[in-house]
Amino acid sequence: MFMPDAIGFIGLGIMGSPMAANLVKAGFDVAGHTRSRAGLDRLAAAGGRPVTGLAEAVTGADVVITMLPDSPDVEQVILGPDGVLAHARPGTLLIDMSTIRPRTARAVAAAAADRGLRPLDAPVSGGEQGAVEGVLSIMVGGAAADFEAAGPVLSALGTTIVHVGPSGAGQTVKAANQLVVAGTIQLLAEAIVLLEASGVDAHAGLQVLAGGLAGSTVLDRKGAGMLARTFTPGFRSDLHHKDLGIMLDAAREAGAVVPVGALLGQLMAALRAQGDGGLDHTALLLATERMSGRTHD
Amino acid sequence: MFMPDAIGFIGLGIMGSPMAANLVKAGFDVAGHTRSRAGLDRLAAAGGRPVTGLAEAVTGADVVITMLPDSPDVEQVILGPDGVLAHARPGTLLIDMSTIRPRTARAVAAAAADRGLRPLDAPVSGGEQGAVEGVLSIMVGGAAADFEAAGPVLSALGTTIVHVGPSGAGQTVKAANQLVVAGTIQLLAEAIVLLEASGVDAHAGLQVLAGGLAGSTVLDRKGAGMLARTFTPGFRSDLHHKDLGIMLDAAREAGAVVPVGALLGQLMAALRAQGDGGLDHTALLLATERMSGRTHD
Amino acid sequence: MFMPDAIGFIGLGIMGSPMAANLVKAGFDVAGHTRSRAGLDRLAAAGGRPVTGLAEAVTGADVVITMLPDSPDVEQVILGPDGVLAHARPGTLLIDMSTIRPRTARAVAAAAADRGLRPLDAPVSGGEQGAVEGVLSIMVGGAAADFEAAGPVLSALGTTIVHVGPSGAGQTVKAANQLVVAGTIQLLAEAIVLLEASGVDAHAGLQVLAGGLAGSTVLDRKGAGMLARTFTPGFRSDLHHKDLGIMLDAAREAGAVVPVGALLGQLMAALRAQGDGGLDHTALLLATERMSGRTHD
Amino acid sequence: MFMPDAIGFIGLGIMGSPMAANLVKAGFDVAGHTRSRAGLDRLAAAGGRPVTGLAEAVTGADVVITMLPDSPDVEQVILGPDGVLAHARPGTLLIDMSTIRPRTARAVAAAAADRGLRPLDAPVSGGEQGAVEGVLSIMVGGAAADFEAAGPVLSALGTTIVHVGPSGAGQTVKAANQLVVAGTIQLLAEAIVLLEASGVDAHAGLQVLAGGLAGSTVLDRKGAGMLARTFTPGFRSDLHHKDLGIMLDAAREAGAVVPVGALLGQLMAALRAQGDGGLDHTALLLATERMSGRTHD
Repeated sequence: MFMPDAIGFIGLGIMGSPMAANLVKAGFDVAGHTRSRAGLDRLAAAGGRPVTGLAEAVTGADVVITMLPDSPDVEQVILGPDGVLAHARPGTLLIDMSTIRPRTARAVAAAAADRGLRPLDAPVSGGEQGAVEGVLSIMVGGAAADFEAAGPVLSALGTTIVHVGPSGAGQTVKAANQLVVAGTIQLLAEAIVLLEASGVDAHAGLQVLAGGLAGSTVLDRKGAGMLARTFTPGFRSDLHHKDLGIMLDAAREAGAVVPVGALLGQLMAALRAQGDGGLDHTALLLATERMSGRTHD
Repeated sequence: MFMPDAIGFIGLGIMGSPMAANLVKAGFDVAGHTRSRAGLDRLAAAGGRPVTGLAEAVTGADVVITMLPDSPDVEQVILGPDGVLAHARPGTLLIDMSTIRPRTARAVAAAAADRGLRPLDAPVSGGEQGAVEGVLSIMVGGAAADFEAAGPVLSALGTTIVHVGPSGAGQTVKAANQLVVAGTIQLLAEAIVLLEASGVDAHAGLQVLAGGLAGSTVLDRKGAGMLARTFTPGFRSDLHHKDLGIMLDAAREAGAVVPVGALLGQLMAALRAQGDGGLDHTALLLATERMSGRTHD
Repeated sequence: MFMPDAIGFIGLGIMGSPMAANLVKAGFDVAGHTRSRAGLDRLAAAGGRPVTGLAEAVTGADVVITMLPDSPDVEQVILGPDGVLAHARPGTLLIDMSTIRPRTARAVAAAAADRGLRPLDAPVSGGEQGAVEGVLSIMVGGAAADFEAAGPVLSALGTTIVHVGPSGAGQTVKAANQLVVAGTIQLLAEAIVLLEASGVDAHAGLQVLAGGLAGSTVLDRKGAGMLARTFTPGFRSDLHHKDLGIMLDAAREAGAVVPVGALLGQLMAALRAQGDGGLDHTALLLATERMSGRTHD
Repeated sequence: MFMPDAIGFIGLGIMGSPMAANLVKAGFDVAGHTRSRAGLDRLAAAGGRPVTGLAEAVTGADVVITMLPDSPDVEQVILGPDGVLAHARPGTLLIDMSTIRPRTARAVAAAAADRGLRPLDAPVSGGEQGAVEGVLSIMVGGAAADFEAAGPVLSALGTTIVHVGPSGAGQTVKAANQLVVAGTIQLLAEAIVLLEASGVDAHAGLQVLAGGLAGSTVLDRKGAGMLARTFTPGFRSDLHHKDLGIMLDAAREAGAVVPVGALLGQLMAALRAQGDGGLDHTALLLATERMSGRTHD
């Protein structure tokens, strides 16, 4: 039976650092590599082994985890000339937890399988806080046996861990997730603007909505912040803009028509073009207010 | 102190009938009027007093409740030549629980106040089931004192009862509610089509979404039905189409820009134009599948 | 044979004044009524007969023309207690040239026909300049014989005069016209923003578009003004906003799904909410630039 | 002075074949390469020199023209290991007339310039008919001197030939063109559905629109075909779908917000998902009718 012990972790950013720390805490031997000095220092502080070369992290690992910004980064780190595939031994579990295009995930998985690796795409939701607390939702694509084998590792990182289909399926579910989250935010933004422009107490209004069929986790967790115009991330609009691009690309490829999704892509692009890509994604409220000539700036 | 006892109830349809029955059960003397024989019979069976003329229901009542299909019905029943205002005595609480245009609600309230009545607009959400179980959400616009006075009556009908502002504010909140509900359904429809068109297990996918920031009451209560294509209402698309028309009108009047709301209005119109106005509003999934060439019919 | 001579003209605003003047010039006896002193003075200066009461304008007229701002104005002036129907004699041609809801046009026509009048809805396009020069496009709904009879009158006002169907059809065609015009402007706005944001010479770019399948009358007449950001009306956004409301209402009533039309309604509403309802409708470019964070103000 | 004589032409499909034939007719020595036997035969019949290898076509050419389906094809043919850059001599004009992403065009141009070539991106509009008749519109990005040098060649292919900016600018203008064309078609589709669903004579209605501000080249050339539901291409929906993808990608990259453009992308995707990607792009009318429950199939 496969009992993973040595983990190579590539990408120690805002999400990757606390995830690697949780793996250390769970008893794994974690060798971590990233481009920034700060990331390596954080891993050392957490009790892991920072290494300066990717090869050092990957060679001899039972499990390699990648947590990178975007599709091209994953392609380069895994498929590149001195990348993961060049150093990992056959049988290694390769778990890419980045949010990337489903088709890139499928291409990476095919190349990894060719080398005898066991690839999983396992993007997460839950944000920095979920990463720190080890309560991420993890949607996993790949072979059932590999999902099984990854259980002890993923359990150290999240609480909702679901196998959703073959390679790429995890990324497709993540894309669907980002569609629904962006849309729910925008619906609340339009509701708030409608209430406030009509002279109605939006706080009381949202309270009623929360108690009925209009209720949502976004409203529960983010409604008060939206009313207070507190847009400290949380999850940056820039990243959600990237994710909506992935979602639209996946829909295009699959022949799925997503009219609201396409409009959301433009609204998030507007927020970004207006200079607010660094704000929390709930700042879609700002873009909606600007459209309505109701500016607070 | 105002202790309401005699209630005149106009409009004993799918919603009005169980609401009137709950008022009887709570000990009120309910005289009910409606155009259909069946509605009058239901009230009699519930222990209320069916009356054949509107005047009989209204004359002498402490509280008059109207529960009617649309704005023109409310205008006619309340403002019409032989309507509520012609028969109600000064001081009567006039509670319109229909879903109508905020501006009609304001006009009705102004006319009622001119006659010395105490008007409230108090639309509900929660559907037939909520009406039967007496657990409706009620969003109330009007004077604070009148809201206070209506407490014993409204408590017999719902569990979430919130004063959201002056006359018309209840209708505005209801409009916002219907925007958010329709939008959440459509987002799930697009997510399901994206997942299924990509060959991903939509059941597992929605399970992950439900556990994270993408979670919603619509998903909890209606997600399984959508996956099973069970579109028995519930809440008919035709009615939601009407409500989105009210919402768009309110947004137009208030100067609120609601791009996703406008698109939802078209998608619900499409469902209706395709002959499915009688299905549950979750049938937005059908319209979305038809756009994607994925028809089950 | 019907040879119209005496014309009662109600509504001497920006459009009505030059239209009445053209009728005078064509040899008709024009008695004109409007609420503003300035309008009456303009008619006198043009050689017409200003009258202070609607009854004076209508009584004895062979043809009554109304040119009013919106549906409620037309309902009041024609159907109201002391309105056109109360004073016009049977057989009078009643030509409403206002832009109003098709269903209002049908209701007005039905009431007029009941009184023995011959109603036509005959909205125009071409703007103030077209009115002054007598080169309006006129789209006419009503009976074929009445359209025939109105020929000599309408020929004094426009050059393209088409009978498009029964009562209300003229308004429906006008609604379709306003949909296409607003949309063409918005498409050019998006094209310009795309070109300029990409560092491309928009002037040269539009020149190519104009020469191919992307060419349009809007581009020919308004393209240079848009590039120069000259937004002097022309046709005010406020009015186009009103017209899109009519179009969306007509589509809703007919069961026509118009997704781009609905989005245009919101974009025009945005321009208005941003305080630019007084600018030419080509200022949709401004709203589009604001969405893209490219503001010139 | 640069007097081009020998032309290597890569890509002899529906567009490339008649273009190459026109170059032969203009007196150039055209060596053409393509993957299909039929394409080579067509060139031979037109008096050109079909060659079986790309290298043969390129080696010794003064001008290399590429006319290929999509961005990856252009990348492979120009940048690939045995591609154009590997065989063309310094100073050669490299004119890519394919419709591809502006950023791919810029990347290709940079690589070509590095090898001492003179790159132009020169996509066309006008369709097969325009190619056959030599009346294409050509929008050209690149250095002014290179545009100048390409004059004799491009003049054999088109009549509107405009230099719109640096490398990539031609593709951006083409993207804008495809946005406006798709949008104009969709506006007419919505107008037709609105007219017909309202019982109005759409033929007469469009006639009025054509004469006023709503007029367009699409209406002039394609309006009758739309009313007759003649959807023989012309320009296939599949290709326009590809082009709208390029447009949305370019807008995303430039930070231009194009809400109507994004919706058009979905509507064209719907038409394609419904199995009609092989029809003329005016079949957007079909997708719009299906949304409105007005199907002819």
